[in-house]
This record gives sequence, structure tokens and C-alpha cells, in this order.
Amino acid sequence: MEQKETWLKSLMTKNPQEGYELAIKLSRMGVKSTQPDMDVLKKLRKEYANSASGLTAASHVVAINFQTISAANNYWK
Amino acid sequence: MEQKETWLKSLMTKNPQEGYELAIKLSRMGVKSTQPDMDVLKKLRKEYANSASGLTAASHVVAINFQTISAANNYWK
Amino acid sequence: MEQKETWLKSLMTKNPQEGYELAIKLSRMGVKSTQPDMDVLKKLRKEYANSASGLTAASHVVAINFQTISAANNYWK
Amino acid sequence: MEQKETWLKSLMTKNPQEGYELAIKLSRMGVKSTQPDMDVLKKLRKEYANSASGLTAASHVVAINFQTISAANNYWK
Amino acid sequence: MEQKETWLKSLMTKNPQEGYELAIKLSRMGVKSTQPDMDVLKKLRKEYANSASGLTAASHVVAINFQTISAANNYWK
Amino acid sequence: MEQKETWLKSLMTKNPQEGYELAIKLSRMGVKSTQPDMDVLKKLRKEYANSASGLTAASHVVAINFQTISAANNYWK
Repeated sequence: MEQKETWLKSLMTKNPQEGYELAIKLSRMGVKSTQPDMDVLKKLRKEYANSASGLTAASHVVAINFQTISAANNYWK
Repeated sequence: MEQKETWLKSLMTKNPQEGYELAIKLSRMGVKSTQPDMDVLKKLRKEYANSASGLTAASHVVAINFQTISAANNYWK
Repeated sequence: MEQKETWLKSLMTKNPQEGYELAIKLSRMGVKSTQPDMDVLKKLRKEYANSASGLTAASHVVAINFQTISAANNYWK
Repeated sequence: MEQKETWLKSLMTKNPQEGYELAIKLSRMGVKSTQPDMDVLKKLRKEYANSASGLTAASHVVAINFQTISAANNYWK
Repeated sequence: MEQKETWLKSLMTKNPQEGYELAIKLSRMGVKSTQPDMDVLKKLRKEYANSASGLTAASHVVAINFQTISAANNYWK
Repeated sequence: MEQKETWLKSLMTKNPQEGYELAIKLSRMGVKSTQPDMDVLKKLRKEYANSASGLTAASHVVAINFQTISAANNYWK
């Protein structure tokens, strides 16, 4: 991870939907930490965004991150 | 995620079956967040809905989201 | 999910083995929610039931659902 | 699951190693519930037992089941 | 699992790093339980140790086992 | 794991972002424990860093390790 700016201040969100959006962000940072080159990422994104298995795999990672964030927020109860 | 309307108000559901339906919804939103184009999604859906590994992978993501929702609802005890 | 009958009343089961059977049912509903056509499902089932990776993937989904059900039942302690 | 004999009485085991063995058993039952034909299973087993990805996938399922059993046994503390 | 010697006495470790090493051991035992022949294992190891997806899959299994062991040790707090 | 130096002293981090960085480190150590040869790793890294499925798989492992670290830190509440 080259970037040194703060991108993840807290796991707390106001509601489940913002929690879901944070889960998407975490999933993308996992990709970026391995491949920081935005041009490569854009090219690859086009690929897997048009592949059924690529999209399911992306949704899978989001689901795991959403599990973490939901627990952190005590499920917004 | 381009859409700004509220689609996820709460993780609470009345019973396990509605929880399962919410898990399916979450899984689909994970896909939509990467590929918002409904025409592409419909085409891809036809593909993986006719592939054993595609269907198992879809069921896998639902299982993880159902785990989250079940915990949120204290397993509807 | 087109079906509207109740198929999941509770996560509670009498014992671990019935919990395991419920985990299998949940895994199959995950598949059915994407592909409701029983004829397609039967054809695909023949495929992955004869594929080592297909069977392992199926067992994987069952394992996750069994985790959820086991927690719901406080591990039948 | 055609078999009706009891094969899973309890998630409790005397120690972690027996817990691990139970995790292996659960993983195999997940496979058997989809493909009950022992002749097919034996043939497929030879396949994936000689494939790196097949073995890793099998170990993956065992890891998830071991997580469930370890929690059930309060980690044998 | 043919081996009958004790290889897993406890999930408790002195510190996180030893916990990580135990997670690796558990992951390998998951493989060995399916393929006990050490010669086959050595040959396959060479394969997946030179494959990006094989290595990621191995790291995945270790991550799940490390999750179990970390919980068992109350995160070494 | 040939290395004997301490690389994992604690799962505690000051904040979520450092927790995420530790999750990346754990994921990489999982790979290194199977393939310690840095030259091989560098070559393979180039491969999967240019593959959509490789990057998603990497992000998946990070997500699981981040789940562990987040729980260890009580979600930095």
C-alpha cells in the first residue's frame, strides 16, 4: 500500500446501506493494495464486470466485508 | 454505486425466510455495484443460471449474507 | 424467488443431524432462487454430482450454512 | 440425503484432534449428500486427491467445519 | 486420517505468530487427510507453489484456520 | 515457515487502517509460508496483479484476515 492518506477512519456507519458502501470500498482497497496502477485496474474492471464468475466473486468479497462491518455496528440495532 | 435511493433500511426481518430473501437481495446488490448496466446483467444471468458452478457460487454468496442477517436477528429466537 | 409458500419457518432443529439437513436445504434454495426451472436444475445436478470440484463446492456452501444453523441452535449444547 | 441412520449425534468432542476428525467427516457428508453413489465417489476421489487445487479446496471445507466445531466446544478451553 | 499419533493437542499458543504457524499446520493436515501419500504431496506442492492462484488459495485456508485459532486464544489480549 | 524472526507480535493496531495493513501482511505471509523463494514470488505477483480473478482472490483473503483483526480490536470502538 503506497498511499499514506487516511482512507479508513472508522468501521462505524450511520446505517446498513452506508455500511454496505463501506464494504464495497474495503473490497476495492484489497484489490488496489495488490495492483495500485489505476490504468491496469480500469482495464481489468471492464473484463470482470462482464464476466458472471467475476461479478459473483466480487459480490463474495463484499459479503465478507459487510459481515465485518455489520458486526462492528452491532447490526445497527 | 450510482443509485442513491435507499434500498437497505435495516437488517431486521420478521422471520428466517424474509431474512433469506434479504440475503439474496444483498448478493445481487454486490453484483450490481460492480456492473450497474441492467442489460449486461440480464445477459450474464442467463449464462450463470445455466452453469452448475455459477449457481453454486451464487448460493455461496447468499449463504454468507444469510449468516450476517441471521446473526443480526439473533437467529429469530 | 417466485415461490411464496413458507419453506423456512425456523433455524431451530432438534439435533445436529437435522441441522445438517437444514443446511443442505438452505444451500439448495440458494441455487433455486437463481434458477427456478426444475428441469434445468436436474440436468445441471447430474453434471456437478459427477465432478470433484462441483461436489467440493457444494459441500463448502453446506458448511457455511451449517455454521449459521449451529450457532442458531447454540451448538445443541 | 437418503441415509436415515444417525451419523451426527453431537458436535462435542473430547479434544481438538477429534474435533478435526469430525470436521473431516462433516465435509465428506456434504459431498455424499449430493452424490450418494459410493462408486462414483471413489472414482472422483482419486481425481481430486491428485490435484493441488482439489486438495486445497478440500482443506478449505474442513477449515470451515473445524471453525464450527471449535466454537461448539468452546475451543476445548 | 490413517495417522493415530497426536498431532493437535491444543488450539492455545503462546503468541499470534505461533498461532499463525498452527494455522499453517492445520491447513496442511486438511490436505494430508485426503492425500496421505507424501510422494504425491511433494510433487503437487511443487505445482501449486509455483502458481499464483494455488498460493492464494493456500493463504485463504490459512486465513480461515487463523481466524479459529485467534478466537480460541481470545486474540492474545 | 523457515523465517524465525518475529513478524507478528500482536493483532492490536491503533486504528482500522493499520488493521487493514496488517491484514494484507498476514495474507502475504500465508503465501510466503508455501513459497519462500522471493524471486518466484515476484514473478508470480506480476501475473496475478494483472488478472482480474487473481486480484479478487487476493482481496478475498485480505477480507478474511481483516475480519479476524477487526474482532481482535473490538472493531476499534
